Amino acid sequence: MNIDMIRAAAARAEGQIRRTPMLTSPGLDAIAGRRVLVKAEALQFTGSFKARGGWAAISALAPEIRARGVIAFSSGNHAQGVAMAARAHGISAVIIMPADAPRSKIEGTRDLGAEVVLYDRARDDRDALGARLADERRLTLIRPFDNAEVIAGQGTCGLEIAQQAAELGVTTGDVLVCCGGGGLTSGIALALQSEAPGLRARPVEPAGFDDVRRSLASGRIERNPEMAGSICDAIVTPQPGTITFPIMQRLCGPGIAVPDEDCLRAMAAAFRHLRLVVEPGGAVALAAALYHPNGLSGEAVVVVASGGNVDGAMFARALGVLD
Amino acid sequence: MNIDMIRAAAARAEGQIRRTPMLTSPGLDAIAGRRVLVKAEALQFTGSFKARGGWAAISALAPEIRARGVIAFSSGNHAQGVAMAARAHGISAVIIMPADAPRSKIEGTRDLGAEVVLYDRARDDRDALGARLADERRLTLIRPFDNAEVIAGQGTCGLEIAQQAAELGVTTGDVLVCCGGGGLTSGIALALQSEAPGLRARPVEPAGFDDVRRSLASGRIERNPEMAGSICDAIVTPQPGTITFPIMQRLCGPGIAVPDEDCLRAMAAAFRHLRLVVEPGGAVALAAALYHPNGLSGEAVVVVASGGNVDGAMFARALGVLD
Repeated sequence: MNIDMIRAAAARAEGQIRRTPMLTSPGLDAIAGRRVLVKAEALQFTGSFKARGGWAAISALAPEIRARGVIAFSSGNHAQGVAMAARAHGISAVIIMPADAPRSKIEGTRDLGAEVVLYDRARDDRDALGARLADERRLTLIRPFDNAEVIAGQGTCGLEIAQQAAELGVTTGDVLVCCGGGGLTSGIALALQSEAPGLRARPVEPAGFDDVRRSLASGRIERNPEMAGSICDAIVTPQPGTITFPIMQRLCGPGIAVPDEDCLRAMAAAFRHLRLVVEPGGAVALAAALYHPNGLSGEAVVVVASGGNVDGAMFARALGVLD
Repeated sequence: MNIDMIRAAAARAEGQIRRTPMLTSPGLDAIAGRRVLVKAEALQFTGSFKARGGWAAISALAPEIRARGVIAFSSGNHAQGVAMAARAHGISAVIIMPADAPRSKIEGTRDLGAEVVLYDRARDDRDALGARLADERRLTLIRPFDNAEVIAGQGTCGLEIAQQAAELGVTTGDVLVCCGGGGLTSGIALALQSEAPGLRARPVEPAGFDDVRRSLASGRIERNPEMAGSICDAIVTPQPGTITFPIMQRLCGPGIAVPDEDCLRAMAAAFRHLRLVVEPGGAVALAAALYHPNGLSGEAVVVVASGGNVDGAMFARALGVLD
């Protein structure tokens, strides 16, 4: 993994992946007590940064391999990123999703032309199901984060952050990144190391599912005790990736964990001050910037709002108009 | 009014007004039956295009006039646009708002440092109140649409539309604009005439409050019978402006009126497919593109999503999770 892979991914993504805006608002600055720059990846195609990694991985496959199609496991955002890239390349995509994934994500994946195979988290062996399908149809598995091309694709977001932050006069400070397996965090960290060495990536996770924070603190890969119970479905993963963890260890600042209630408050703040729809897992970084400022330093903080695929009922709950 | 005024407004706005993105989504294209390009003015500073006109008008004042401060009447979006520009210029702003304006708009205006004076729509004489304050304090009135500099400011949105649509390969078709008094519509129409003559601006209004549509049809200024009863508070005005109407008559295609229910559906579609928060009055153009395609022609339609300042309860109603 190096910056050249990220630059190559950016070149392949030209015209296919949106350069998302860096949003600001005096209202958010007032809450946070410092300038807040929000990288609005919820405005990315498919509604999350995962379109970057999906595009990077599929566009990097050898044409004869790619033509056989791809397969992915995902609760929804990686699913849509892979589905979009597969459709644009004219190949088939099989996506294995938990039956309890948010409805908007299941529908969004189907709308992008993918074949969705649902499984029961409690009863079914997801990996066996995927292995059988991949084997039968000779599909290439696109892993959600432990894949160098996927990390390079997510890193293109970091190239944009470096440039957009500099345009706004911000060259030092923390870049808070919503973190599941660490693909986005490690990709951004690599890009910043090269393009904006005064900016430091820091992973943010839901409290109770902070495997990356604990792993960075202990120096070895730690697992989450549970896989269910957070509203942040997009970023609950069992443990850091074997490719992503060493990168994060080398380049990232300490991790931060925020409770679900603060994610909901951050969603309401993004609604009101940015007119941006952010999903719970896409709001953890903003929640850290707004409501957990103690560990932050500097006059400005950059926040990645990593996705916006959320059902209406959950969004209304964040707005405080539905329990 | 001419294109040079718009270009001059764009030059004065450099670095002060956001170049908002042009968003697209396969999901919206599928509903509309054609490509839909959404100019996301809800992402403008203050949450609506009104920041453009407010900036243009205040930045054009002679310094000694400007220093005395400004005053405006507004239910909320013009209020915030004027307040932001006043604060950036270091001058005071008095905003006269109806007491029943959306709470988020009243708070947003106060947060921007303006002095908000509330009046009762039924009991108080708004104009007399404003005239007295303007006279006492020698404030300059910034009209919401019948002001050449304001129209020029809104026209900067049209310059961006011309360029962004061309980048997406769209050079012919309708540009649907949420329309109150016609400042945005006439400004965009002027910009398109010069920069993208194959694109034609068309005003969209709430059904029952379609004074501009009826005026364009009859050839003379028609009034709305009522001023209350629409959820589209931002774009309910008594009649077209005396500066804006002749411009719209000369340059715009026929107006379109859409019922409130379709605005709510369009808000839900923008939430799901664009992850964008749009207010009712900012959703009429998208509603026309999605649910009233009969009068449209061409393979693509451009839609201005003009604002996103909406209270949580109204938004939840649009999402179908609250009655």
